[in-house]
Amino acid sequence: MSESRADKGVRLARGVQKLLYDMGYDSLTEVKLRIRRRVDVMGINDKGRIIVVEVKSGPADYRVDEKWSDYLEFCDEFYFAVDADFPTALLPDSHGLIIADAFGGAILRPSADFTLNAARRRNVTLRFARIAARRLLEAENPIKEKFNVF
Amino acid sequence: MSESRADKGVRLARGVQKLLYDMGYDSLTEVKLRIRRRVDVMGINDKGRIIVVEVKSGPADYRVDEKWSDYLEFCDEFYFAVDADFPTALLPDSHGLIIADAFGGAILRPSADFTLNAARRRNVTLRFARIAARRLLEAENPIKEKFNVF
Repeated sequence: MSESRADKGVRLARGVQKLLYDMGYDSLTEVKLRIRRRVDVMGINDKGRIIVVEVKSGPADYRVDEKWSDYLEFCDEFYFAVDADFPTALLPDSHGLIIADAFGGAILRPSADFTLNAARRRNVTLRFARIAARRLLEAENPIKEKFNVF
Repeated sequence: MSESRADKGVRLARGVQKLLYDMGYDSLTEVKLRIRRRVDVMGINDKGRIIVVEVKSGPADYRVDEKWSDYLEFCDEFYFAVDADFPTALLPDSHGLIIADAFGGAILRPSADFTLNAARRRNVTLRFARIAARRLLEAENPIKEKFNVF
């Protein structure tokens, strides 16, 4: 059965979250940055180090979307995540690479170290914190009308 | 129908979350600090300012628990939250006071400004971020065995 591009992206994002978890990073999907772009997966570890992962469901998805280069200044490490069928030669070999499926992933190529400055790290961490708490509250209160909040 | 102390605490905490939301704070309940104590509600706003609220279900709950004084150094503002029946004369009048029910609350007495130092603020924000993301992932993956993670 064929799968839509969006479904595949969600599946791979979940596998990436599992990989990040195993690496000691708590993560969120679809994190909106100050620049009004959404990164696919963002992880943060107990040192406050930040990983951004751009999930590509296939070559077409990679070719149409060049937003990822804007993300490099919002993280310490940056990775593309693709599935095992993706023609990885298409991807710039200067960036990190994760091969993932729905249940996990592996780092095939490490990321450069971009080392966020302190002010940017503070801002990104605060955004991450607030988005996560907001979504959790929404998840815990499925009847939106109840509190007239969400 | 009588309500257990724990249920009442949960109910009031939810009302406090609603109040904090209206004040521009995203919040979490039961946030474990580095000192291994759990604050009842912690909120954080878009400036990174941190509010801690200690929910008291009744006089007995207040009398048996003096942990709250340890929380003052982990926040910019501190409040007790009680319901309308609580004998508020029992509470120290040097601290903030919220009257809450399950659906919201109001600040009856403002908090002092404790103004966290930068390092402590960074640590508290990071803990908040990671706890929120972890709980969201758990909420989104109710079948714990699926990823063998949670």
